[in-house]
Amino acid sequence: MGFKELIERERNLRRSSLILALDLVGEDKAELIKKSKQLISEVTAHLCAVKFGRPIVLSLALQNGVKELVAHCHSLGLPTIMDAKINDIGNTNMLLAKQYFAAGFDAITANPFIGWKDGLEPVFSFAHSQSKGVLTLVYMSHGGAKEGFGQIIANSRTRRKRLQYEVFAEKALRWDADGVIVGGTRPSIIRRVRAIIGREIPIYSPGIGAQGGDAVMATKAGADYLIVGRSLYESKNPRKSAMELSQAIYPYLKAKI
Amino acid sequence: MGFKELIERERNLRRSSLILALDLVGEDKAELIKKSKQLISEVTAHLCAVKFGRPIVLSLALQNGVKELVAHCHSLGLPTIMDAKINDIGNTNMLLAKQYFAAGFDAITANPFIGWKDGLEPVFSFAHSQSKGVLTLVYMSHGGAKEGFGQIIANSRTRRKRLQYEVFAEKALRWDADGVIVGGTRPSIIRRVRAIIGREIPIYSPGIGAQGGDAVMATKAGADYLIVGRSLYESKNPRKSAMELSQAIYPYLKAKI
Repeated sequence: MGFKELIERERNLRRSSLILALDLVGEDKAELIKKSKQLISEVTAHLCAVKFGRPIVLSLALQNGVKELVAHCHSLGLPTIMDAKINDIGNTNMLLAKQYFAAGFDAITANPFIGWKDGLEPVFSFAHSQSKGVLTLVYMSHGGAKEGFGQIIANSRTRRKRLQYEVFAEKALRWDADGVIVGGTRPSIIRRVRAIIGREIPIYSPGIGAQGGDAVMATKAGADYLIVGRSLYESKNPRKSAMELSQAIYPYLKAKI
Repeated sequence: MGFKELIERERNLRRSSLILALDLVGEDKAELIKKSKQLISEVTAHLCAVKFGRPIVLSLALQNGVKELVAHCHSLGLPTIMDAKINDIGNTNMLLAKQYFAAGFDAITANPFIGWKDGLEPVFSFAHSQSKGVLTLVYMSHGGAKEGFGQIIANSRTRRKRLQYEVFAEKALRWDADGVIVGGTRPSIIRRVRAIIGREIPIYSPGIGAQGGDAVMATKAGADYLIVGRSLYESKNPRKSAMELSQAIYPYLKAKI
């Protein structure tokens, strides 16, 4: 079973498209692991996966802390995504992918801007040979995202003009990406991306909550998975926040499952 | 003294524009630290800085192994660059920058594609408030780099067409970057970037050696610093390789110092 099927199965079983973005950091490793485990256990019933950010991996170190947290997620049946935003030459990308997958991650994210040849090609072939997933950025959630993802590209041969994110959506199709990332702050772009990629590739939307994205609007626009960080781990009652959010989305998610 | 002055002083003192790319990985942490220290000590006389890649940071963990290696570089008078290729939303970028700088790094690299607002703006202001450097990508060294860095951009208002890397070179100027990265495999692009950025911003060229970039050609084209990895750490005699390379470059470097 590939990553696409793995996460879809959990989503449908748990009736929740929420992915927890684990972006906690801290000096005290033991405390950070304890706090993270507690948070994951508390909201697990209302999640379908956990996404780790680069900051927590730096804080905890891959081999010990992160591996332990990944195993904790797996013990609860939750797939894990490493938000690595792979973004380097092929040789370096492969060293990163190998280490992340060895730590137990089920999927990684990558920036398509880096290109295919000697860039993401080795990552895709390695990941797929291990039944791991690669999710590619199509449009991020922050204000400045427009600068790059929203720029106008002219094809060097045909001179035809396209928006950068449209080009990225087409690359995701061509490269057989296991998912695309489109900021939940931009429902109209989610719609446009859905029209390009069809039903085969799921859309992951970060930026829900603290960054201003609305869970229901993003789902109605076509998001299959919603990535939520601060609104859960900064909540006084994370379990309640996760439950309320997943319940609000469920009527719109139901149509997809 | 800012990062630009720090590394320039070392380069001129040591009469070498070589930066060692430390991209080693390994299972055994103690062995990896030992091997890295040995390599750095062996070639230190022919270097002006050390650049750490993301893979070695994953292998060693930031707080222990990497901090120790950064301190080792500093004890030899070598500035250190974290090749983080910062590439995320502002909040995450700041968490990364803070951790890297706390580990002792003097500069970090960033991908300008991510944009300024809520992207790199917080990283630049934080770095400069700490007298740390930010180096931005302008054109990478791998084959697939052309896909993104070489694409044609149409200005959304003026409709004027530019190449992506020209836009990035202008952003480096506007953002007050402490350096730009242009693959040593592409001397003609180094020349073009130099013409855009003038003399104020130094050019860092990776991809020298194993990836096919020629040190002398890159320097003649305008590169101020050359990033060399595999040709040093895979050499049977790294000290001799570093010495020969820095001597070959020196006649062309001399003109700049």
